[in-house]
Amino acid sequence: MATLPLIEYDDAGPEVRAVYDEIMELRGTDWVNNFWKALANDPKMLRRTWESVKEVMAPGALDPLTKEMLYVAVSVAHGCNYCINSHTAAARAKGMTDQMLAELMAVVGMASETNKIVTGLQVELDEAFKDGGRN
Amino acid sequence: MATLPLIEYDDAGPEVRAVYDEIMELRGTDWVNNFWKALANDPKMLRRTWESVKEVMAPGALDPLTKEMLYVAVSVAHGCNYCINSHTAAARAKGMTDQMLAELMAVVGMASETNKIVTGLQVELDEAFKDGGRN
Amino acid sequence: MATLPLIEYDDAGPEVRAVYDEIMELRGTDWVNNFWKALANDPKMLRRTWESVKEVMAPGALDPLTKEMLYVAVSVAHGCNYCINSHTAAARAKGMTDQMLAELMAVVGMASETNKIVTGLQVELDEAFKDGGRN
Amino acid sequence: MATLPLIEYDDAGPEVRAVYDEIMELRGTDWVNNFWKALANDPKMLRRTWESVKEVMAPGALDPLTKEMLYVAVSVAHGCNYCINSHTAAARAKGMTDQMLAELMAVVGMASETNKIVTGLQVELDEAFKDGGRN
Amino acid sequence: MATLPLIEYDDAGPEVRAVYDEIMELRGTDWVNNFWKALANDPKMLRRTWESVKEVMAPGALDPLTKEMLYVAVSVAHGCNYCINSHTAAARAKGMTDQMLAELMAVVGMASETNKIVTGLQVELDEAFKDGGRN
Amino acid sequence: MATLPLIEYDDAGPEVRAVYDEIMELRGTDWVNNFWKALANDPKMLRRTWESVKEVMAPGALDPLTKEMLYVAVSVAHGCNYCINSHTAAARAKGMTDQMLAELMAVVGMASETNKIVTGLQVELDEAFKDGGRN
Repeated sequence: MATLPLIEYDDAGPEVRAVYDEIMELRGTDWVNNFWKALANDPKMLRRTWESVKEVMAPGALDPLTKEMLYVAVSVAHGCNYCINSHTAAARAKGMTDQMLAELMAVVGMASETNKIVTGLQVELDEAFKDGGRN
Repeated sequence: MATLPLIEYDDAGPEVRAVYDEIMELRGTDWVNNFWKALANDPKMLRRTWESVKEVMAPGALDPLTKEMLYVAVSVAHGCNYCINSHTAAARAKGMTDQMLAELMAVVGMASETNKIVTGLQVELDEAFKDGGRN
Repeated sequence: MATLPLIEYDDAGPEVRAVYDEIMELRGTDWVNNFWKALANDPKMLRRTWESVKEVMAPGALDPLTKEMLYVAVSVAHGCNYCINSHTAAARAKGMTDQMLAELMAVVGMASETNKIVTGLQVELDEAFKDGGRN
Repeated sequence: MATLPLIEYDDAGPEVRAVYDEIMELRGTDWVNNFWKALANDPKMLRRTWESVKEVMAPGALDPLTKEMLYVAVSVAHGCNYCINSHTAAARAKGMTDQMLAELMAVVGMASETNKIVTGLQVELDEAFKDGGRN
Repeated sequence: MATLPLIEYDDAGPEVRAVYDEIMELRGTDWVNNFWKALANDPKMLRRTWESVKEVMAPGALDPLTKEMLYVAVSVAHGCNYCINSHTAAARAKGMTDQMLAELMAVVGMASETNKIVTGLQVELDEAFKDGGRN
Repeated sequence: MATLPLIEYDDAGPEVRAVYDEIMELRGTDWVNNFWKALANDPKMLRRTWESVKEVMAPGALDPLTKEMLYVAVSVAHGCNYCINSHTAAARAKGMTDQMLAELMAVVGMASETNKIVTGLQVELDEAFKDGGRN
């Protein structure tokens, strides 16, 4: 169980309820997940985090499904089980198939393998890759 | 500098040259980057890793640019500078713009923030997210 | 369950009991937590670790509550659930309030976000920050 | 060098300049560090991140120096060299002495050691630590 | 539960069964562990991963027990509970004693501690250690 | 450069010199590496860390070369460049060949890949692996 209490809608003040209402409206659901209920212990933190997530995950140069899969990839790299499950569910809701999930994991696994070998052997960066190929 | 010598084409045996030739052909380049030159100290490791990367990064349910961006995301999470630079360069070559890179980083950053808060508060997984929403 | 047996007081030899006694005395408790019971499989490792923890966590230039919160922050970054819970409990016992815990997590989250963006964009260090501002 | 260009004040549009002006004013400096110049490639990301950092690092239940040291601890755990140097410099500016820095690192090191042993031995959480001692 | 279904032998196609048969034969067991059943959602990923694991873990310049303990050490560093348990079990099956496990954890813990202190203090590499002492 | 000054022998007090003397004697060298010179800012931390390293790395149920390679593996997982280089050099001094280093990296890479796939797919632990096969 969480190290701070989860704040339910009925026990929440107006600032917290306002965020909960926005979350449910944007998602077309009638419930709010535990992450937000934990943040609600600090209403300013809840508001700030919600505003940021909304802005970052909105359609832009990258589409929402790609963003959701990137979120899963980072969560795997950090080993955050809650995040892996919740964002895998969100990616499925946006169209990710089982085969896409399998390939996502294959890339995450391969990147992890080569990351560690490069680091372990202290391979120096090629001139052509400097600045991420920006030059 | 690397903790194993980098094996140049001229100093390589036939097994290593065969892989180098395939890399250059597939990429349409006349050079091989340092990662492969470090692996070439163990020709079997070079061959196995190249076969795996080729298979994983091939077009499938996910397109090659999405895979490249996932690779970057994982490399950032692991803090592998070589990998960040080389795969950012690869993603650019496949069409990633500056704005796409900025949004990619925004997602990586936001995922990192919420990952840590969820973990730090030990938030329990919602029933609806169990199995990544597979149920 | 642990991958090594947990050594209970009644089953422990004199070296282990001596450490257990010190732990209980310093903490004013009549029980020892599982971490120490796992270490007790190797009495020298138990003794060494206990001596180090005692010395590191003692009041010094930093007060014990600040040290406990730093311990929590590192444990979150590493995703160690046992450590997060046990040191959050220890920090509460030393005066950490819910609001302090919420702010602690906000800092951990924000640091994680900016850490990853800086790394992902490979931002070069400003001259003024070289040596951690020691110059 | 960074994988996105660093935007200098003279080349920046009004949205970016407005944030740069606020940063310099709040800090009483006449320059802006590279992190913000990299973010400025996406003016909304710059604005959002600056607002968040300002709010999170403001005095609250935790004082600014404690927050800065927590920031350093997380940055060390993530191995972000830019972040370690810039926040160590910021912590020094807020009063951190060499002895405090040494003790900060001793705690970070000790936490890392015990985190890994607990994880490696898969030690189960004691009843008394459930919920971070909230019960 | 897993975010992809676990494929049982009776529900598997011939490509998957062929790998399962090889795993059971090489290990002298009549069952296959869940990791492979999850990979089997993508038969090519299953085949590729099995071939790689078999080759990497085979006796070579390092003996199989040393390789298994290295696997445990990496799994601890990444906080992968499944991996810690399964490879600790595999190491035990290859001769690792309780005392060896305790020393393995002592090294992992000590390495974690000094890793973080070195990183936190941004200690510069000594000339004699350049290239991992290859020079 | 380091965020704390490196304490040279000539500038050190008697407690620090005593540790430096022990390090040089045990290693049969006439110099001390930078890690210890950074720790020397806090003589108690220097003494404690040296005593611990000496005890942990001494021959026991695991031989010193195996311990050194485990140290390298953990350092790779954490991305600590100083540690990778210094412990690779130490492992070479104890007999590690280029082929052993290549296999070490192959195991570290493979472990990283499978760690992430297991975590990403949230594979549940098999009954037979509970408690690391201790049962």
